[in-house]
Amino acid sequence: MEKRTSYCGELTEKNQGEIVTLHGWVQKRRDLGGLIFIDLRDREGVVQVVFNPELSSEALSIAEGIRSEFVISVKGEVTLRREEAVNDKLKTGKIEVLASEVTILNRSKTPPFYIEDGINVSDELRLKYRYLDLRRPEMTAVFKMRHHVTRVFREKLNELGFYDIETPYLTKSTPEGARDYLVPSRVYPGSFYALPQSPQILKQLLMTAGFDKYYQIVRCFRDEDLRGDRQPEFTQVDLETSFLSKEEIQEITEIMLTAVVKEVKGIEIPRPFARMTYDEAMRRFGSDKPDVRFGLELTDVSEVVKDVSFKVFTGALEAGGEVKAINAKQAAEKYSRKDIDALGEFVATYGAKGLAWMKVEQDELKGPIAKFFDASKQSELRQVLEAEAGDLLLFAADTKETVAASLGALRTKLGKDLALYDENELAFLWVTDWPLFEYDEEAGRFVSAHHPFTLPREEDIEKLESNPEDAMAEAYDIVLNGYEIGGGSLRIYQKDVQQKMLRALGFSDEEAEAQFGFLMNALEYGTPPHGGIALGLDRIVMILAGSSNLRDTIAFPKTGSAVDLLTQAPSSVSDGQLKELGLEIEEES
Amino acid sequence: MEKRTSYCGELTEKNQGEIVTLHGWVQKRRDLGGLIFIDLRDREGVVQVVFNPELSSEALSIAEGIRSEFVISVKGEVTLRREEAVNDKLKTGKIEVLASEVTILNRSKTPPFYIEDGINVSDELRLKYRYLDLRRPEMTAVFKMRHHVTRVFREKLNELGFYDIETPYLTKSTPEGARDYLVPSRVYPGSFYALPQSPQILKQLLMTAGFDKYYQIVRCFRDEDLRGDRQPEFTQVDLETSFLSKEEIQEITEIMLTAVVKEVKGIEIPRPFARMTYDEAMRRFGSDKPDVRFGLELTDVSEVVKDVSFKVFTGALEAGGEVKAINAKQAAEKYSRKDIDALGEFVATYGAKGLAWMKVEQDELKGPIAKFFDASKQSELRQVLEAEAGDLLLFAADTKETVAASLGALRTKLGKDLALYDENELAFLWVTDWPLFEYDEEAGRFVSAHHPFTLPREEDIEKLESNPEDAMAEAYDIVLNGYEIGGGSLRIYQKDVQQKMLRALGFSDEEAEAQFGFLMNALEYGTPPHGGIALGLDRIVMILAGSSNLRDTIAFPKTGSAVDLLTQAPSSVSDGQLKELGLEIEEES
Repeated sequence: MEKRTSYCGELTEKNQGEIVTLHGWVQKRRDLGGLIFIDLRDREGVVQVVFNPELSSEALSIAEGIRSEFVISVKGEVTLRREEAVNDKLKTGKIEVLASEVTILNRSKTPPFYIEDGINVSDELRLKYRYLDLRRPEMTAVFKMRHHVTRVFREKLNELGFYDIETPYLTKSTPEGARDYLVPSRVYPGSFYALPQSPQILKQLLMTAGFDKYYQIVRCFRDEDLRGDRQPEFTQVDLETSFLSKEEIQEITEIMLTAVVKEVKGIEIPRPFARMTYDEAMRRFGSDKPDVRFGLELTDVSEVVKDVSFKVFTGALEAGGEVKAINAKQAAEKYSRKDIDALGEFVATYGAKGLAWMKVEQDELKGPIAKFFDASKQSELRQVLEAEAGDLLLFAADTKETVAASLGALRTKLGKDLALYDENELAFLWVTDWPLFEYDEEAGRFVSAHHPFTLPREEDIEKLESNPEDAMAEAYDIVLNGYEIGGGSLRIYQKDVQQKMLRALGFSDEEAEAQFGFLMNALEYGTPPHGGIALGLDRIVMILAGSSNLRDTIAFPKTGSAVDLLTQAPSSVSDGQLKELGLEIEEES
Repeated sequence: MEKRTSYCGELTEKNQGEIVTLHGWVQKRRDLGGLIFIDLRDREGVVQVVFNPELSSEALSIAEGIRSEFVISVKGEVTLRREEAVNDKLKTGKIEVLASEVTILNRSKTPPFYIEDGINVSDELRLKYRYLDLRRPEMTAVFKMRHHVTRVFREKLNELGFYDIETPYLTKSTPEGARDYLVPSRVYPGSFYALPQSPQILKQLLMTAGFDKYYQIVRCFRDEDLRGDRQPEFTQVDLETSFLSKEEIQEITEIMLTAVVKEVKGIEIPRPFARMTYDEAMRRFGSDKPDVRFGLELTDVSEVVKDVSFKVFTGALEAGGEVKAINAKQAAEKYSRKDIDALGEFVATYGAKGLAWMKVEQDELKGPIAKFFDASKQSELRQVLEAEAGDLLLFAADTKETVAASLGALRTKLGKDLALYDENELAFLWVTDWPLFEYDEEAGRFVSAHHPFTLPREEDIEKLESNPEDAMAEAYDIVLNGYEIGGGSLRIYQKDVQQKMLRALGFSDEEAEAQFGFLMNALEYGTPPHGGIALGLDRIVMILAGSSNLRDTIAFPKTGSAVDLLTQAPSSVSDGQLKELGLEIEEES
C-alpha cells in the first residue's frame, strides 16, 4: 500500500499538478460517457476521482468493480475541473483527481443505510451499525468537535497550573446519591466495588494531600432509569482547588468555557457571565436552570386574583400555594383552543391540574375564565402582566413547586415553539445561593441539593440542627441555554461540620463513620479550605453541536434500557465466572 | 482568607522586599531565642517563615499554637537570610519570610508518619493514610511528572492528527484474554457488562468508521491474581491508525516517547530505536523484553557439552532441550559457594532444576562439575564463552523455555547485583517478528501471543489451519530497560482471516459469531487496513520516576489482594442493592 500524501477533503486548486495518493471510502460511483467518476471520502471530506481509459485502462477496469463503501487507494494527478463542472458547495469542488492507479483495499456489502447527513432511519439501526453511522459527515464532525473541546479544556487547565491526576474506577459504594453500579470482588466473594458516580471524595483527599489544583476528564456512572438526556456512563470535566473563593473558581470555569467556545464556534463570550440567585431563577423562570435567551417570565398574580370568585385560583391560594402567569406576547392568534388544550396536557405532565388562559383583546380579556374578572380586575391584570391586545395569558395555580415546574417547562416549550431566540446564541448563567437541602417527600427526610460535602454558609452551620430547610450552601451551578452544564461548591473541610451535615441527612454517627470515616479522618489532618466544580462534557458538546440528543455526542452510547446494541452488552456470563465471584442468579419467582 | 501571591517553594532572592501571602502546611516549627521559625510547605516546596515579636507580637502568639501539618496562611516580607543562615540545599534557602500576619486555616492531629522522603513505614499505613503519603515531596514529584508525561503524550498525538475519542467502560464480556471484572445489570437481571481489558475491538471499529487516527488515555481492567507490578486497573496510552505500516506506527510511538523523555528527564533519545526479533531476544537474552543496557548474554553450549559425561547436561539434550551459559565477567570472587546456592534457589522459581557453575582460573575451570570436562572440553568452553581468569560461568540445562526463563531472570538479577548498568540510562528496544500463537499447556490449545485480532504475516495465513505454531504475527512490542512498556500490531481487517484465526483458537463458528459477530460484520463493510499500539502509562512513569513499584505511580492504588485500604473497598452492600440486581451471595459450603 502506497503512503497517503493527502486527505481527500483537503485538496484544493493549490494542489493542481501534484501527483497524490489517497486512501478512502467510495461515497458514490457514476459512469458517464466511458468515464467513471468516484466521490472518494475520508474523515476530512470528499474529492472527485476520474477514471479515464486514455489514462489507464487498467485502473478503469478495476474501477468498474468498485461499489459504495469499498476502501480504495488511488494515485493520480490533481487537475482543475472544467468551469461548468465546478461544485462550489464542496471545498474540493474546483478540482478532481485523474486516477492513474487504483487498488481495492477492502470490499463492502451494501450498507443498511446511506452514509450521508440527515438520514431518516431508526436509532436501533444506527446504533447496531454504529461504525457506519459514525462515517456520516455530521457524526464525524461531532467527534472532531468533541476532540477539540476536550483538548482546549485540558490546555487551559494545564496553563492554569492544574495537575491531571487519575482516581480509581473500582471504588467504594456509598448510599447517598444515585444508584451505584456494583462490581463483585473475586478475592472477597460477597463484597463489591462500586463504579464512581463522581470522584468527589477522592478529589477532596487530593486537596488534603496538598496538590492544590487537580483536574481530570473522567467517566462517571449512575445506574438510573434513563431519560433522553441521560446515559449510564458520562464524562465530567472535574476540578478541585485549594484556598480559592467561589468567585475565583467561577473565573477559572469561565476562562475554560470561553476558550472552548472561541475554539469550536469562533464566538467571543464576554466575561464575567451573568449571575442569578437560585431564588430569583425559580421566581422569574420557574427553573433552577433558566434559558435566559428569551423573556416569557413568570409573574406572580396571587395578589390580583386572591379575591376573584374563581375557585381554582382562590383554592390554590388558600392551600398556601400561588398563582402565576406567563404573558406570551402576540401569541393569541397563534394558539387555537385546541392548541391551548394541548398545552394543558403538556403542563399536566409536570403535575399541574390545568392551565387557565385568557386572550387579550383591545377592550377586554377573553376566554373561559374571563367572566371571573370584572373590568377593574382585568385592568389590574393587564397592568401587572404588561398585557396588550394580541397577547396570550397562561395561568397556573398550585403549590409553589408545581407552579414553577409547570410554568417553567411551559416557558421553555413556548420559547422554542414561538422561536423567541437565536438557536446559535450561547447564554451562560451562574445560578448561585442554593439551599443546602431539599426535602425528599418519598424518603421523609432532607437530602442534599448538591451532595453531602457541600459547605454550608458559615452563618447557617447552626441551622443544620435547628432548621435545615433554611440553610444555604456555598454552591453554584453553571447553566447554558437552559441546560445545567455543571455544578460546584466550596466543600466542608472540618470534621465537626461534616458530622453535623451527615446527622442532618439522617446518618447515625455509626453509619457516618462506616461510610465516610476515611474522609472525616482526613479532615483532622490539615485539610485546606477547598472547592471545585464538575462540568458535563457530553452535554456541553451536545449544545455546541446543536444537537438535542446526548447519544449523538458519545461514540458508542447505550439505549434507554442501557443496552449497547452494537456489542449486545449486557449479556450472560458463564457459570464458572459466577462461581468464582460467589454469586447466584436469583430464580424468577 | 487573603489571596495567595506565590507558592512557598517558588520564592527566591528575586522576590526580596515583596510582601507575599502564602498558604501551606507546617513542615516544622522551631523556637529559638524568642523567635519562632516555621518551615512552610506547599506543592512547590518549602520556605522558612520567621515570627519576630518586634514585628508582630500577635502573629508570634498565634504561631505558638501552631503544630506540624497545620494549614496556615502567612503574610510577610521576603528578606535575605543572614550569610551564615543560607541553606544551599533549598531553592528558597537564600531568603526567609518575616511574618506580619498569620491565620490558622485548619488544624492537624500528629500524623502517623513523618511527611518527608525516605520514610520507613509499612505499605499498609501509607495506603491507609494515602492523603498524607502523597504530601511527601518524593510522592508529589511522581504525580507532577505523571501529569507532564500524560500532557506530552496528548500534545504529540494532537499534533499528529489523532482524535481523542472515548469508548465505553460498560462493555461486553469476552472469554479470550484475562479474567473480566463484571458489572451486573439491573434492567436485565442475570446479565452482566464487563469492564474493558482494553478498548481493542472498539478502537478497531473507529477505524471502520473512518476516524483514521484515534487515541485515548484510558483505564483498563483485569481481574488477575496480582503481583508487585500489576494493579486491577491500569492506564493505557491507546492508539490506532488506518493505512499505516508497522514502521510508521513505530515512528509515531518513538516521536511520543522521545518527547516525553525530553520533557521530564531532559534527555535526547536518538531515533530510530534499536530493533531485535523475538527469536534473537529469546536466544541472546532469554527474554522477550531484554534489558539491553548490559551484556551478560546467554550462550548456547549444547554442542560443546553434548558428549561430556555430565548427566544433567546430556539428559536435557537427549530430551530435546538445550544447555546455555552466562559468563559473569570477573564475578568469580564476588560469589561464594553459598551465594551461588542462593542463585540456584532463585532460578528454581523459574522452573530450573539446578544451576551448574564453574569458576575460571588461570589454568583450569574449577567447581563441582569441572571434573566432567577434560582439558580439551575446558578449552572449548573457554573459547565459546570468551572466558578469562576470574569469570564465573553459570549453566542451565533444561527445555528451551525453562533455560530461557531461568537464565533470562538470572541475567537480570546479576546485571543489577553487579551494577552492570547506569540506573539513569533509558534503553528502548523494539521486539519484532513475534509468533502469532503460544501453546497453552493447561488449556491444551493455542492462545494468542498478543490477541485474536493480530494480523498474521500474509504468507502465514494458510498456516492458521495447518501449523499454527509456525505462523508469525505483524506484531511488535516496545521495551524499556527490561520492561515491556507497550505492545502493538497490525490487525485483521478481513472477515475470512478473522474466522480462521478464531477457529485456530478453538472457537466454533457459533461461538465466534456469538462473541465477535459484531466485529466480523464490521469487517464486511469497508474496514480499512489498520493497526496500533497500547503503551502502559503507569509502568512508563514508574521507570522514569526511578521506582520499581507501580503503586507509587497511582494516586489511590490497591493492595496485592485488590483492596483499597483507604476507603475499604470492596465492601458489603445492602440486601436491597442485591435484590435489585437479582443476585444472591452463595452460601459458603
